[in-house]
Amino acid sequence: MYLMMVALTAMTAGAQVVEDFKPASTNQEGKEYPMVNSQRMVRAQISAPEATSVKLDIGGVKYDMVKNAEGVWTGESAPQDEGFHYYQLNIDGASVPDPGSKYYYGASRWGSGIDVPAADEDFYTVKNVPQGSVNEVYYYSTVTEKMRHCYIYLPAEYRENPGKKFPVLYLQHGMGENETGWSAQGKTGIIMDNLIASGKAVPFIIVMDNGLNAIPAHPDTTQSQPPFGFPGMRPRPEGQGGQRPQGEGPRRGPRRRGGGFNGFQEVLLKDIIPMVEKDYRVIADPAHRALAGLSMGGMQTHMITLMNPKMFAYVGMFSGGTFRTEELQDAADFKSTNKVLFMSCGGKENMGVDQAAEALKALGINAYSYVSPETAHEWQTWRRSLYQFAQLIFK
Amino acid sequence: MYLMMVALTAMTAGAQVVEDFKPASTNQEGKEYPMVNSQRMVRAQISAPEATSVKLDIGGVKYDMVKNAEGVWTGESAPQDEGFHYYQLNIDGASVPDPGSKYYYGASRWGSGIDVPAADEDFYTVKNVPQGSVNEVYYYSTVTEKMRHCYIYLPAEYRENPGKKFPVLYLQHGMGENETGWSAQGKTGIIMDNLIASGKAVPFIIVMDNGLNAIPAHPDTTQSQPPFGFPGMRPRPEGQGGQRPQGEGPRRGPRRRGGGFNGFQEVLLKDIIPMVEKDYRVIADPAHRALAGLSMGGMQTHMITLMNPKMFAYVGMFSGGTFRTEELQDAADFKSTNKVLFMSCGGKENMGVDQAAEALKALGINAYSYVSPETAHEWQTWRRSLYQFAQLIFK
Repeated sequence: MYLMMVALTAMTAGAQVVEDFKPASTNQEGKEYPMVNSQRMVRAQISAPEATSVKLDIGGVKYDMVKNAEGVWTGESAPQDEGFHYYQLNIDGASVPDPGSKYYYGASRWGSGIDVPAADEDFYTVKNVPQGSVNEVYYYSTVTEKMRHCYIYLPAEYRENPGKKFPVLYLQHGMGENETGWSAQGKTGIIMDNLIASGKAVPFIIVMDNGLNAIPAHPDTTQSQPPFGFPGMRPRPEGQGGQRPQGEGPRRGPRRRGGGFNGFQEVLLKDIIPMVEKDYRVIADPAHRALAGLSMGGMQTHMITLMNPKMFAYVGMFSGGTFRTEELQDAADFKSTNKVLFMSCGGKENMGVDQAAEALKALGINAYSYVSPETAHEWQTWRRSLYQFAQLIFK
Repeated sequence: MYLMMVALTAMTAGAQVVEDFKPASTNQEGKEYPMVNSQRMVRAQISAPEATSVKLDIGGVKYDMVKNAEGVWTGESAPQDEGFHYYQLNIDGASVPDPGSKYYYGASRWGSGIDVPAADEDFYTVKNVPQGSVNEVYYYSTVTEKMRHCYIYLPAEYRENPGKKFPVLYLQHGMGENETGWSAQGKTGIIMDNLIASGKAVPFIIVMDNGLNAIPAHPDTTQSQPPFGFPGMRPRPEGQGGQRPQGEGPRRGPRRRGGGFNGFQEVLLKDIIPMVEKDYRVIADPAHRALAGLSMGGMQTHMITLMNPKMFAYVGMFSGGTFRTEELQDAADFKSTNKVLFMSCGGKENMGVDQAAEALKALGINAYSYVSPETAHEWQTWRRSLYQFAQLIFK
């Protein structure tokens, strides 16, 4: 029965499917499906005896699945890129998580994710090397006047060498993601433990916070806007954006993007960095402080480091655009503070990071670019970007 | 339209439904459904335009949901107990997580959970008090010869007072759950931070590991069985259970309950406790070491403390049965080591913890019992049990 069904779906897809599917590493313990084969096709399966239509929804495409006599639906996608992808199932019009996968926060929802094996997956595989830890922390924000939630990676040496202080990287997620992304999808702790064990990176702390839900209780109307525009950030007419007149009190109702986007700078400078420098053994100076982020987090890094040019010696933008020469040619404070300016993207994105780095080098900036082979605006690009960036900083 | 539909489902249920539903605290950020009302009824909603049957599956009952003209299904459950419940939706025969909820590991799967407000929820609500952290840790197990994964709660004072050493509670989950349960569903860190801040508990470390996946690579056939039987543990004929003959090599294939259940003792004693006492500032003696667990974790606590009577001064069994007088009356080592023996259950369970504690007190044991009002074999019982137990230990 099983073999017959497989043959059927393969024929339906009209393509030569290699039958070497294995359970994905992101599956729930003991779950056989979803599977991935050597062509990087994803095969999902779910029992839905009374359904009339079940689809696998991955990479922006909905693939029809096929029902067998027992009411079990099976189907596979076209080949996917290496690395992590969000996906879901659609059952008679309902988009739901796949009960076979673990769940991740992205696309503004907790839902299914799948890791497609990659040639270079060794760098984010758990190994028997000295292990740091990823610490879940609540703290009070004076800006939002609420408790906030973040994750802090501490290297193994933080525990082993209690007299030592460490540099800190503040590392931000993208639009529709949250503070869980870098550890869960990004595998930050695993990448860092492996890098440090191999001597490729020095030990440092990484703080992963939420860059979207930072809504100031009392918006600061005196704070100036960044000197240049940013991709995805349109200038806002007075009274419509993040700069609400004082006296209106805290913003109510659904979160708006602008508020969190700009509010994050205030929370980072007034709450997160002071909390980290108070509670952890940190070298609290710009030369030992880095800011980086992916996509929206890269744009936030761009804005915040321009607005606060003497705060961070190391700057990383992963699929978050580029710095332009006109932004930095006269930026004396930025140039005298900055030690590394890193810009990366996926090979399937076209962000001009190589050209931007060349132009910035001509200004005397220690600029680096990195292009992740054969990946798009997804986590494999950002895992690799962290792997590269971490080897350049605090050295 | 909305009001009409609500009226319809209320009539369908044939009961007076109070229309004061609010989004659950366990919802994904920004998601309106599921909701709970003041009668503790759960109302779910999902868009499934082509479905012919959608049900809300909670507390062992499947409640029919009703479709409106837009293809959105809505329906509610009977009143639920206060506290946390696992649940799922069923769409045309497919059991899937509700896209509105956050996800938790229980019933051997990641799936939906909902917190029904409780009169006493203050003790597990995040507050602006000194905050500890919950640390995600990987470590190498010499017993399983694999990397393992656990969570370690460190109180705020662990960070603030770097010269101080702390007692440790090893705290185990139940059948079908894993090392994430005590922190996520159990709210361990929040309960402890609040208890310590109010002076009701002394600061201590809590280690939360996986009690089911501990399969020794080379099973130890010399280890004796516990002297008495345990609920849920049937004696196994030779060669069928946890004691496989040497020379067969590591167990392959799906995990069997017996292996992990017994293997956990070996992993706890040979890997977890040594790792914690090496890597953390711990008072490494029996007087500052506690073992507790819920349900299966309580049974493991029962077995392990009987088998290792001089290891743990504090013992807690939450909905995990009771110690019997015949087990302890001649147990000189256990009695001379033990300082508190705590047994609890839900008021809707019938575990005889009060009678058991009375009988053990007559043996000179400092036994305590606790019955959680109006709750069953669920997390509200165990949150309350931790809250009670934590106030009794290391004092």
